[in-house]
Amino acid sequence: MIKIQKALVSVSNKENLKPLLNNLSKYKVEIISSGGTYKKIRKLGFKCIQLSEFTNTPEILNGRVKTLHPKIYGGILNKRQNKRHHKEIKKNNYENIDLIIANFYPFEDAISKKTNHNNILENIDIGGPTMVRAAAKNYNDVVVICNPNQYERFINEIKTNKGSTSLSFREKLAEEAFMETAYYESKISEYFNKKTSNIFPQKKIFSYKLITQTRYGENPHQKAAIYSKNGYQDIIQLSGKNLSYNNYNDLYSALNVTDFLPNNRGIAIIKHANPCGVSINQNKIKSFKEALESDPISAFGGIVSCNFKMNINLAKEIKKIYFEIIMAKGFDKKSINLLKKKKNLRLIDVSKFKSDNKFNFISRYNSILIQNEDNKNFSKKDFKVVSKRKPNNETFNKLIFAFNVCRNVKSNAIVITNDYKTVGIGSGQPSRLDSCQIAINKMKMFQNSKKNSELFAASDAFFPFVDGIEKLVQSGVSAVIQPSGSKNDKEIIKFANLTKTILVFSKTRHFNH
Amino acid sequence: MIKIQKALVSVSNKENLKPLLNNLSKYKVEIISSGGTYKKIRKLGFKCIQLSEFTNTPEILNGRVKTLHPKIYGGILNKRQNKRHHKEIKKNNYENIDLIIANFYPFEDAISKKTNHNNILENIDIGGPTMVRAAAKNYNDVVVICNPNQYERFINEIKTNKGSTSLSFREKLAEEAFMETAYYESKISEYFNKKTSNIFPQKKIFSYKLITQTRYGENPHQKAAIYSKNGYQDIIQLSGKNLSYNNYNDLYSALNVTDFLPNNRGIAIIKHANPCGVSINQNKIKSFKEALESDPISAFGGIVSCNFKMNINLAKEIKKIYFEIIMAKGFDKKSINLLKKKKNLRLIDVSKFKSDNKFNFISRYNSILIQNEDNKNFSKKDFKVVSKRKPNNETFNKLIFAFNVCRNVKSNAIVITNDYKTVGIGSGQPSRLDSCQIAINKMKMFQNSKKNSELFAASDAFFPFVDGIEKLVQSGVSAVIQPSGSKNDKEIIKFANLTKTILVFSKTRHFNH
Repeated sequence: MIKIQKALVSVSNKENLKPLLNNLSKYKVEIISSGGTYKKIRKLGFKCIQLSEFTNTPEILNGRVKTLHPKIYGGILNKRQNKRHHKEIKKNNYENIDLIIANFYPFEDAISKKTNHNNILENIDIGGPTMVRAAAKNYNDVVVICNPNQYERFINEIKTNKGSTSLSFREKLAEEAFMETAYYESKISEYFNKKTSNIFPQKKIFSYKLITQTRYGENPHQKAAIYSKNGYQDIIQLSGKNLSYNNYNDLYSALNVTDFLPNNRGIAIIKHANPCGVSINQNKIKSFKEALESDPISAFGGIVSCNFKMNINLAKEIKKIYFEIIMAKGFDKKSINLLKKKKNLRLIDVSKFKSDNKFNFISRYNSILIQNEDNKNFSKKDFKVVSKRKPNNETFNKLIFAFNVCRNVKSNAIVITNDYKTVGIGSGQPSRLDSCQIAINKMKMFQNSKKNSELFAASDAFFPFVDGIEKLVQSGVSAVIQPSGSKNDKEIIKFANLTKTILVFSKTRHFNH
Repeated sequence: MIKIQKALVSVSNKENLKPLLNNLSKYKVEIISSGGTYKKIRKLGFKCIQLSEFTNTPEILNGRVKTLHPKIYGGILNKRQNKRHHKEIKKNNYENIDLIIANFYPFEDAISKKTNHNNILENIDIGGPTMVRAAAKNYNDVVVICNPNQYERFINEIKTNKGSTSLSFREKLAEEAFMETAYYESKISEYFNKKTSNIFPQKKIFSYKLITQTRYGENPHQKAAIYSKNGYQDIIQLSGKNLSYNNYNDLYSALNVTDFLPNNRGIAIIKHANPCGVSINQNKIKSFKEALESDPISAFGGIVSCNFKMNINLAKEIKKIYFEIIMAKGFDKKSINLLKKKKNLRLIDVSKFKSDNKFNFISRYNSILIQNEDNKNFSKKDFKVVSKRKPNNETFNKLIFAFNVCRNVKSNAIVITNDYKTVGIGSGQPSRLDSCQIAINKMKMFQNSKKNSELFAASDAFFPFVDGIEKLVQSGVSAVIQPSGSKNDKEIIKFANLTKTILVFSKTRHFNH
């Protein structure tokens, strides 16, 4: 237990100081401060020593240099049990400082407000982090508080211990201090990396704020949590049980699929991070039914993602089936009330979702792989018709729809479509031929009764041999869209011409593992 | 262009100072320093002002407080163009400091050497990062060097500009300074989080060192890089083209599969991050042939991963087939010489590979999902025999082999085995029934000619209905290992008993997406 006798207070965020100062005053803690914090403390009616009087050195450079003084750092950094330190402190007429209360210039705010570069530079705090770091280093003897959210815990601690604190308490605060300084520094580093367009610096620092721990990870014996860049969730849960790790994973995969569909027109059903049915029919109820019919067995217990606002009529249809999550760009009142009746069903409003994310990454043991997001938007000029038979506009659009779904299916991916809906999706196979067969089997299983005059297919990467496209054409596919790049491209074009298949090559491949 | 007149040098790493000091002396830069750095500079034969003389303040607390002085920070932080700043500097008899050369106490080294906590605390540098941060903030007027790897660039810059530096040069160094301080701080934060077992702190900071940029990402239009915790690669490439992003992804998936096989006995062939054949036959050539036979079509262009040292006889067999990567725990000379002849074939030595990684994470737009690694090792006590027919020891071991392969196949996963080899793998399907069918189809396609008296199957999660296990048993499977947890577990046990199938339940699920 160490008693606090002298504190230095220097805060940018001046919230909630009163109860804190009340308690410091109760335990007769002397307070040193300067500038705006000094004024605030005096205004609140507490005694306070001017920092410049304490150090006998003027504050200069518009506050750039005030606390950076050996009397301050001697007071913070000396080891109370070290005789030599004790002697040096005495000799220089320094005094122990037992408590640092500081928080930093709001650098992150300055960035997010997109103020100019000079203003952002001014918001790089030098003195604050230094005091906090010094106090945290010497937590054996010193208490450090660097966030107003710690005030209450601190007040409880000194109330319990009559003005003293325990070592374990000080250690926890030291941990949190370095968490804050590391976070602060990571944001500065990120800002400079962005400014100089340095996307792969020698040392890469990522920082995230906790949203919540999930009940467990991919499996119940794994602990897990979700973090975000800003610490707030870009999706809003309106109802249902807490989201699980797998829910989050599926949910963002679902968002990815519907993001690539035309605005306000698209439903995807997702299971195990893969779409099992997608449709962009103008009629939303039809759209849902079509997505469901693509693979009604897999859809069971899946996620429905709509890139439009949910209405009551669609909600009635969706309610008939067992899903874990319904996502939409908002829900009208009637649809919420209806769907909320299913207590376990999670309703997610994604109308606020917006991403400025440019990179994705994945950890692999001690390594991480980082890459640009594959967020290319297609128009016709990104493709080349290589068959003799040419697609009309409508056919071209349908092929682009198939390709946009296919890019979000796990590789190797084959998607068979009819009009603007999927009828067979083959995913996650080591062999492209197998993905073709899976897509065909799905189609045959669920679409038997219907006439599908126009079956189209998309592949996420080139066909290495003719066999894959052959299998598709034999099953009724009359137009294929795929990346080029195979040694056998010519053979594949020849086969397309022989069978009067429309063949379109894309310039970009879309592996997605 | 700003001319350097006064420099402060305070380095923990004293490498390569001589050429640097030579050039500073050439351009008549005054140098201030203290402690070990001062001695080193004098020893190298250069003039140097003692810091304590410059500040007229003694160095105290075993060097804990030496540079933290307003004369230093006034000298660094004043804006040269600001009249008020200029006046204050004059009035206080301060002087401009135009160059900071500093690097920090080796905190990361102290951690990795596992020295005691007090020593680690001593290695938290307070003065160094503060000087570097202050100089970087004021890069408009000040140059900051915080890593010996910048000396050469700096020397070139002042040679080119006759003792001056350009703004763009100073900005780049400021960027690198904040990269270094952010990295340094992240390591301190990580250390404290570990010490207090805080696995999901409110703010999580990850830091990595660049290994290399890859030619592109998952696809050619995506930029990408690989980073690691320590900045060195835990795998060694002996031959072949540079590794691609997808290579790395597959390679670590392959390591994961073979990691779970018995020591010095196991081959897996991987394609698109999924195993397509695995065997643990004692005879290594047989083992390879069995892994290959599991799905020779998918194996084409894949990765072979051996959890033992490669020998010439096995190399001869492997060389007959087209693979992209061969991984092994070392290669004997003859095998390297043979395999190197295939110029594009990448040979990877994983004998040095070791992972202390406890968490994995994946980014999803602005969020990241973090979880414990699923690294559970199984023994019989983790399972429960629920069928009337009981497995003997051998059968149990074979089932555990099947289960260990299955956990590393993308969900939903079904693996059919015979003895200690896979004969059918169904992966990445939204429906478990489909994964069963894919595994069965594979088995039928490639194993037709053989008698497989004993076919076993593993599932990564429970069967929701009887239909999946029914399909497997109808195809000749006589023992099944699977997690429990379905509403229909009882029905499934009943079905197993009816068909005299051995049924083993595991306590843990192993989804892997």
